[in-house]
Amino acid sequence: MNNLLEIIKEIAIPSPTKIVLLVIDGLGGLPDPKTGKTELETAHTPNLDRLATKGICGLSDPVAPGITPGSAPGHLALFGYDPVSFQIGRGVLEAVGIDFDLQPGDIAARGNFCTIDKDGLVTDRRAGRVSNEKCIELCQLLDGQLIDGVRILVPPVREHRFAAIFRGQGLALEVSDSDPLRVGVAPKSITALNPEASKMASVANGFITHARATLTEHYPANMVLLRGFSQHPQLPTMSEIYQLKPAAIASYPMYRGLAKLVGMEVLKTGTAIEDEFTTLKQNYANYDFFFLHIKPADNAGEDGDFDRRVKIFEQFDSIVPELTKLEPDVIVVTGDHSTPAMLKGHSWHPVPLILYSKWCRPDRVTEFSEPACLPGGLGRFPATQVMPLAMANALKLTKFGA
Amino acid sequence: MNNLLEIIKEIAIPSPTKIVLLVIDGLGGLPDPKTGKTELETAHTPNLDRLATKGICGLSDPVAPGITPGSAPGHLALFGYDPVSFQIGRGVLEAVGIDFDLQPGDIAARGNFCTIDKDGLVTDRRAGRVSNEKCIELCQLLDGQLIDGVRILVPPVREHRFAAIFRGQGLALEVSDSDPLRVGVAPKSITALNPEASKMASVANGFITHARATLTEHYPANMVLLRGFSQHPQLPTMSEIYQLKPAAIASYPMYRGLAKLVGMEVLKTGTAIEDEFTTLKQNYANYDFFFLHIKPADNAGEDGDFDRRVKIFEQFDSIVPELTKLEPDVIVVTGDHSTPAMLKGHSWHPVPLILYSKWCRPDRVTEFSEPACLPGGLGRFPATQVMPLAMANALKLTKFGA
Repeated sequence: MNNLLEIIKEIAIPSPTKIVLLVIDGLGGLPDPKTGKTELETAHTPNLDRLATKGICGLSDPVAPGITPGSAPGHLALFGYDPVSFQIGRGVLEAVGIDFDLQPGDIAARGNFCTIDKDGLVTDRRAGRVSNEKCIELCQLLDGQLIDGVRILVPPVREHRFAAIFRGQGLALEVSDSDPLRVGVAPKSITALNPEASKMASVANGFITHARATLTEHYPANMVLLRGFSQHPQLPTMSEIYQLKPAAIASYPMYRGLAKLVGMEVLKTGTAIEDEFTTLKQNYANYDFFFLHIKPADNAGEDGDFDRRVKIFEQFDSIVPELTKLEPDVIVVTGDHSTPAMLKGHSWHPVPLILYSKWCRPDRVTEFSEPACLPGGLGRFPATQVMPLAMANALKLTKFGA
Repeated sequence: MNNLLEIIKEIAIPSPTKIVLLVIDGLGGLPDPKTGKTELETAHTPNLDRLATKGICGLSDPVAPGITPGSAPGHLALFGYDPVSFQIGRGVLEAVGIDFDLQPGDIAARGNFCTIDKDGLVTDRRAGRVSNEKCIELCQLLDGQLIDGVRILVPPVREHRFAAIFRGQGLALEVSDSDPLRVGVAPKSITALNPEASKMASVANGFITHARATLTEHYPANMVLLRGFSQHPQLPTMSEIYQLKPAAIASYPMYRGLAKLVGMEVLKTGTAIEDEFTTLKQNYANYDFFFLHIKPADNAGEDGDFDRRVKIFEQFDSIVPELTKLEPDVIVVTGDHSTPAMLKGHSWHPVPLILYSKWCRPDRVTEFSEPACLPGGLGRFPATQVMPLAMANALKLTKFGA
């Protein structure tokens, strides 16, 4: 843990106050050159504007200015974990993203089905993006093998993607990848990067040899590539750090998985924004911290669909009164990163944020958008400060030092 | 020392220019819901507004956003010391707060007189808040004992509070507290947290046994509790770091003690704001740095007295011309933390600040208040940057790097 988390852990106290953290995935945007306005500026959001007026606003950097975050660092930062100190390997992320129950000691790798030619050279790293059904069928062929006392579990993810989980004694994660990351060359042999990892390397190579033999009749998916060998990061939980009883409401498995990594209880919910708000209402009495994840704005950004993002923000805005009616002590509305339609992908731009509580010191911001948040009272700040601020405003932190 | 202090130490140069740092304890506030204005916004402060207009403004975080600082971290940060790296134990703070002259090697604990019942269980951790006179009388009974070659000094603080200073060879501070922090249980035995501290634990337990026997007829103050064993932090002095000749003007012992910890010379002064300004004028020729501490706004905040805070700010404002007449090269007006009347205590909210010098780059702020400082040229910044900025504006720092 870094210094700030250590301090928070010392001064956090349990209390009946409630915090709701609304994460609108990919919230931040860029202006449409025709209008000069971002998606959020274009959207008509009277309820968010009202919340911005009563609350304190700002723009946060998930990792650091200029750094485009993936979903894991973007969310870890919002939960208060420095995303540079706490890095989550690709294998682990793939496993938690499908609700796979990683056990202590498990080593997980991200797997691809791929195509190799008769000389063993990779011709397609994604095996023509096989169907989900085919992925399930192939994973069943590979699942459950035992090599040198190590059981290898192979749950499907989707299309060409799967996870490979190695469970057994004497494993270490310091091994190289087999994925060459380009075509025209053979898959690489996995090598141990230190002596402790030699068993891991030989078991992984054994698994690949066996997979190649098993898949020989399954062209284009006639080989596998592995990368990102990693272990459950064993993060200190949010209950340990913040003395909270936290719950997550998210319809996508990746975000449920991230919430589980920090010790949140993951609630059953539906796929629509409305379902998530219903779940919040039904469980409101039982927890004091809620992480509510709203996905569609990110997808629309990745698709480059400016107008769809505008509509999603407006739809979200119309549900905000359902939240304010619950009267949480602290409401935070923000995103895990920006996904501007103009860039069709995640970006480095800071993310607008509203923090509302009875004890915030309101600024003069009266609108929720990137430019409107700029002169806000929170200024521009690292996303890891969101949780300390939310905790303080919920009166869940005592004084530091005498 | 952290990196920034190391750099400052390398580039600091002595010069005849003068810096005055005015610390208005608990300066920052929160709006009165009736008017939407904070204490400082409500106060009529034409002189501070003029200084804000000529100077550069901003809002500082004493420790970090969301963290409510005690007096020690709030002041250390203003003096340029990272309050997370330099933590001062409760025992030391109690001792320096009564002008007790701690010597190297002394170990100090915070003491309470408390009440125990016939079974030895604590029934009141504060012994009914005995009078200051009683406190002095009881401390005299306990003071000066010698156990295993260790002299135990017991200066009174006030009411039920005292300090216990252990002076002798072979002591280490890693021992547990005896204070159980709740009633209905017995005081805890002090235990060594590492082998080097075993003598300290046994001497402290011996002191407590002796105290219990001595106090048996002094119900409700018939027992003592100790906590926060700590040692003089041996901070690098402000002269070493900044090449300054610094003086402190403060009417409360706690702040005089903190100033001494960083090597300031503490000047004799009276209890009114006017007395402190007179002391400043009388000693103006003899030092190049003045820390002037103004206490009453914090007390009014703790009392929840919004209107008294407004009046104190106005009273302070009326004396500001006395300061500007002296024409210091740099004037900083700020606080060590916020104490909003609405919260009746210290809070995490950032603290407004004016820095005036001939060499500051003025912004467009024309009023001294929390919202007015938001768009100021210093932005929102950690309080540890106040000293480097003051030093630079006093032309007391040379270039870093060639």
